[in-house]
Amino acid sequence: MGAPMARNLVRAGYDLTAYNRTRKKAEELAQEGIRLASSAAEAAAGADAVFTMLSDDQALAAVVFGPEGIAAALKPGAIHVSSSTISTSFARKLAEEHGKRGQVLVSAPVFGRPEAAEQRKLIVIPAGDSHALEKLRPVWDAIGRRTIVIGSEPWQANAVKLCGNFMIASMLESFGESFAVMRKFGIDPHLFLETMNELFGSPVYRNYGTLVADQKFDPPGFALPLGLKDIRQVIDAAEEAGAPMPFAAIVRNHLVSALANGQEKLDWSSIALVSARAAGLPAQAKQPV
Amino acid sequence: MGAPMARNLVRAGYDLTAYNRTRKKAEELAQEGIRLASSAAEAAAGADAVFTMLSDDQALAAVVFGPEGIAAALKPGAIHVSSSTISTSFARKLAEEHGKRGQVLVSAPVFGRPEAAEQRKLIVIPAGDSHALEKLRPVWDAIGRRTIVIGSEPWQANAVKLCGNFMIASMLESFGESFAVMRKFGIDPHLFLETMNELFGSPVYRNYGTLVADQKFDPPGFALPLGLKDIRQVIDAAEEAGAPMPFAAIVRNHLVSALANGQEKLDWSSIALVSARAAGLPAQAKQPV
Amino acid sequence: MGAPMARNLVRAGYDLTAYNRTRKKAEELAQEGIRLASSAAEAAAGADAVFTMLSDDQALAAVVFGPEGIAAALKPGAIHVSSSTISTSFARKLAEEHGKRGQVLVSAPVFGRPEAAEQRKLIVIPAGDSHALEKLRPVWDAIGRRTIVIGSEPWQANAVKLCGNFMIASMLESFGESFAVMRKFGIDPHLFLETMNELFGSPVYRNYGTLVADQKFDPPGFALPLGLKDIRQVIDAAEEAGAPMPFAAIVRNHLVSALANGQEKLDWSSIALVSARAAGLPAQAKQPV
Amino acid sequence: MGAPMARNLVRAGYDLTAYNRTRKKAEELAQEGIRLASSAAEAAAGADAVFTMLSDDQALAAVVFGPEGIAAALKPGAIHVSSSTISTSFARKLAEEHGKRGQVLVSAPVFGRPEAAEQRKLIVIPAGDSHALEKLRPVWDAIGRRTIVIGSEPWQANAVKLCGNFMIASMLESFGESFAVMRKFGIDPHLFLETMNELFGSPVYRNYGTLVADQKFDPPGFALPLGLKDIRQVIDAAEEAGAPMPFAAIVRNHLVSALANGQEKLDWSSIALVSARAAGLPAQAKQPV
Repeated sequence: MGAPMARNLVRAGYDLTAYNRTRKKAEELAQEGIRLASSAAEAAAGADAVFTMLSDDQALAAVVFGPEGIAAALKPGAIHVSSSTISTSFARKLAEEHGKRGQVLVSAPVFGRPEAAEQRKLIVIPAGDSHALEKLRPVWDAIGRRTIVIGSEPWQANAVKLCGNFMIASMLESFGESFAVMRKFGIDPHLFLETMNELFGSPVYRNYGTLVADQKFDPPGFALPLGLKDIRQVIDAAEEAGAPMPFAAIVRNHLVSALANGQEKLDWSSIALVSARAAGLPAQAKQPV
Repeated sequence: MGAPMARNLVRAGYDLTAYNRTRKKAEELAQEGIRLASSAAEAAAGADAVFTMLSDDQALAAVVFGPEGIAAALKPGAIHVSSSTISTSFARKLAEEHGKRGQVLVSAPVFGRPEAAEQRKLIVIPAGDSHALEKLRPVWDAIGRRTIVIGSEPWQANAVKLCGNFMIASMLESFGESFAVMRKFGIDPHLFLETMNELFGSPVYRNYGTLVADQKFDPPGFALPLGLKDIRQVIDAAEEAGAPMPFAAIVRNHLVSALANGQEKLDWSSIALVSARAAGLPAQAKQPV
Repeated sequence: MGAPMARNLVRAGYDLTAYNRTRKKAEELAQEGIRLASSAAEAAAGADAVFTMLSDDQALAAVVFGPEGIAAALKPGAIHVSSSTISTSFARKLAEEHGKRGQVLVSAPVFGRPEAAEQRKLIVIPAGDSHALEKLRPVWDAIGRRTIVIGSEPWQANAVKLCGNFMIASMLESFGESFAVMRKFGIDPHLFLETMNELFGSPVYRNYGTLVADQKFDPPGFALPLGLKDIRQVIDAAEEAGAPMPFAAIVRNHLVSALANGQEKLDWSSIALVSARAAGLPAQAKQPV
Repeated sequence: MGAPMARNLVRAGYDLTAYNRTRKKAEELAQEGIRLASSAAEAAAGADAVFTMLSDDQALAAVVFGPEGIAAALKPGAIHVSSSTISTSFARKLAEEHGKRGQVLVSAPVFGRPEAAEQRKLIVIPAGDSHALEKLRPVWDAIGRRTIVIGSEPWQANAVKLCGNFMIASMLESFGESFAVMRKFGIDPHLFLETMNELFGSPVYRNYGTLVADQKFDPPGFALPLGLKDIRQVIDAAEEAGAPMPFAAIVRNHLVSALANGQEKLDWSSIALVSARAAGLPAQAKQPV
């Protein structure tokens, strides 16, 4: 995800230095006029803003607080724009630590697949200090199709991102339960999907619904273990907020069951196989062709 | 729902006789050139096809098998087009009973609100004997924007309709859980909704999401007790099929809780108040203005 | 269950006439000095009280309201003691119908297996008209070890019986979930069971827990489809009462999944296999030895 | 809990040095012939075994790894007996860290309230190195009525303890759901409880069931937030194991809802108030008298 976002920033005229732990990935960026740094610290040193896009709390913590990390290198007044899907509690800790150093945290999670990032079609949902957000406005325009400012606390954006992923996961589980009924009743799942496409008129329903109806879960667009991480985090965030989430609890259980039944390499839409097995249906995912 | 469908049939040139238990409702139809019958039997006698649109199994059973009912009046070979949202088990019984009399049952549930019916924008999902469906094709075109033939067994269409309503209910519950988290975190629910509108791009999300974000549940577009009936029926259908539906089970419980807390006059999207109360939020629905 | 109860009534000096649809079962009773009737009506005619112990609403309805049924034969003022595990709604209807005929319904469900019935160790939980209950007191003493009068409305006893079965089912599901964790962690389930036996000190935990730890579900003490019927009825009763039951909903789903995976001949404690499969464990029940 | 266990060890002839962060609690022990240390390190220095009984992972981590902690003070070959209810993941980390220092971890959680500890009636479930367990056998006999060795890995005992607490929590939730139905049906909850006491014959059902039937949740025997911590940990342990726990997920949600509705000072059996509120019942806990 980070690469297409970086390319769009360069195309918009920004001066960029990039760092990636995998040298080869970084080198692809070099061909687009992006300077390469040999560490996160080097990339952050002297910059007005540093952007991070990592897989989870641990990866981000390593890049920020680890040796050669961002926190020690970033100058006072500089902004750390965190676009990773992280927990609200870690976002709070991150804001606090940057604050101690006179640095500013902006959380700016995005919705959209890598293709959408390439086409500047991301939905960007930033939250944080209003002055920092104002400065970054042209940046959002350079990477996304729509910016929705969530609030003044960075972690609020992470809460919205996690709940958004929960909304998608709920849709997947709903499809899984319905498709199992359809198949047991001898009704072609594609007819049910076509009906839902007419009803909801949503590309997200169409895209994910097709994966589920076709049982085509490999290669994964979003790997199941990452989905489980996000749902665990939305439940933890809800507990902090003081709000029960029974749907999220079921999704978590079904993702745990999916992993226990060998689906760790499949897309998270393969949660539907859990409902299929529970209904006594053969639950083999189609092999990629 | 029946009235706008009837009007569109007349406009398409069909010769219609209508019956409604509430005389006044029937009289409005008379002004559009529809003949009025004084009983369901009178409306059905001699007709090639009779259409029913009633609130539940009991109401339909009364109109079909009660005194002055359709079953006794319909001629052999005639078609009963049932558009009510009924249980799969009752649909099966209905097909069997009509079959004994040489009559044909077609289930043709529809998706869409009364406004959509008026504008010929319904989604029609018929199932039944293929010859009967073929004959009725111009009828579907006269009332809806899209027809998806589900299968050769009438009850299969009812299964799809029930699961479709379950998909909507799941979306409502998902919104309810997410909005509770948002409110507890001090995030404006409308910002979350706006993000979901961008993400899903679905009018159904937009319309229902706005009701929930505004907590505007009165007057009801679809009353909560009717929603509970549908979810109970989808669970019963799934049990017949041999498929568990954990999401549907939660929705049922939350609708039961909603009724127990005085929401019987509200729209079924007020299921969100159950999540609000569980999170300790003030859960008053807005009064109509 | 009916047979041992009948034997204990005869031993206590009561004058009994029995009827069973299966002639052979009835004949065993004849050897103990019980008169046999050739129909339920014949058994009920002239009696002060008639006892029924049947598997479900439908079976009881047939015996009471069917041809040669009890309702038409029972004299005014006579008592129908219904010990079947039936729905609260059918119990209400039954009371009403008997009332119309000047007859009295007493619901007297029992807890205990056939062995307990044989040994006069049942728990009897009668509800109904207080005069009728008073008259029947010696009867309860003849069949059970303990009588707890629930209330003045017969259906209230059925509600208690259904919730009692729910309490057992919940325990079974809890064992199932815990045992799956134990097995995945390489901990002998029998050690967990032993710990629970020390902790709860309950024969019900010991007996059922041993079945689950041994995965010995065949032959069934209480067949899984009967358990599903009871849980469906407790959920329906709770909906009438206006109370959600999330645990019961999960139990229902797991029993549906159990049936869909071929467990219709097993004991209802085999609900634990659903948790085992969800955890990716081999879920074969032991064959009877 | 630690104090009565310590007293019983002294009475059994062991030579004990105690440390408690609250000086006053420690001083009570001094009157029974127990030496007092001014830090955990001082208590551990030179000892053959050190026992810890703390409220959670964080508290134990502070005492073991913090300044003046056990890990640095304990001699090689010495045993750390951890009786706290901690997470399986922290137990694994603890074992590893002690192992690096040539020390041995034994997990020995206990079941039983402080009164049971006083009367040497605890259930002790140790796990760890078999030689260490053998040496400690007289210790278990000095504090408990029954010892069940769980396995060779310390964390396995923590898994059993957590699942045992889950079994109790499930019973509480089951009571809560049933009592709500009873109250909505106008049935005295005490009659239901009496029936369950006859059926299960368990002191745990009797004691907790009475609290719930009386709605007497204050003062707490086991505070609700501690219960939530344990259920969160059982869910995390189950996820590590690869086993879904739908009942545990509901319990967690209901405890979160309880906290969100002001029950943080009540006993965890007040989870029943969540079912009461969901059923529209007045859900006030009785004040202590």
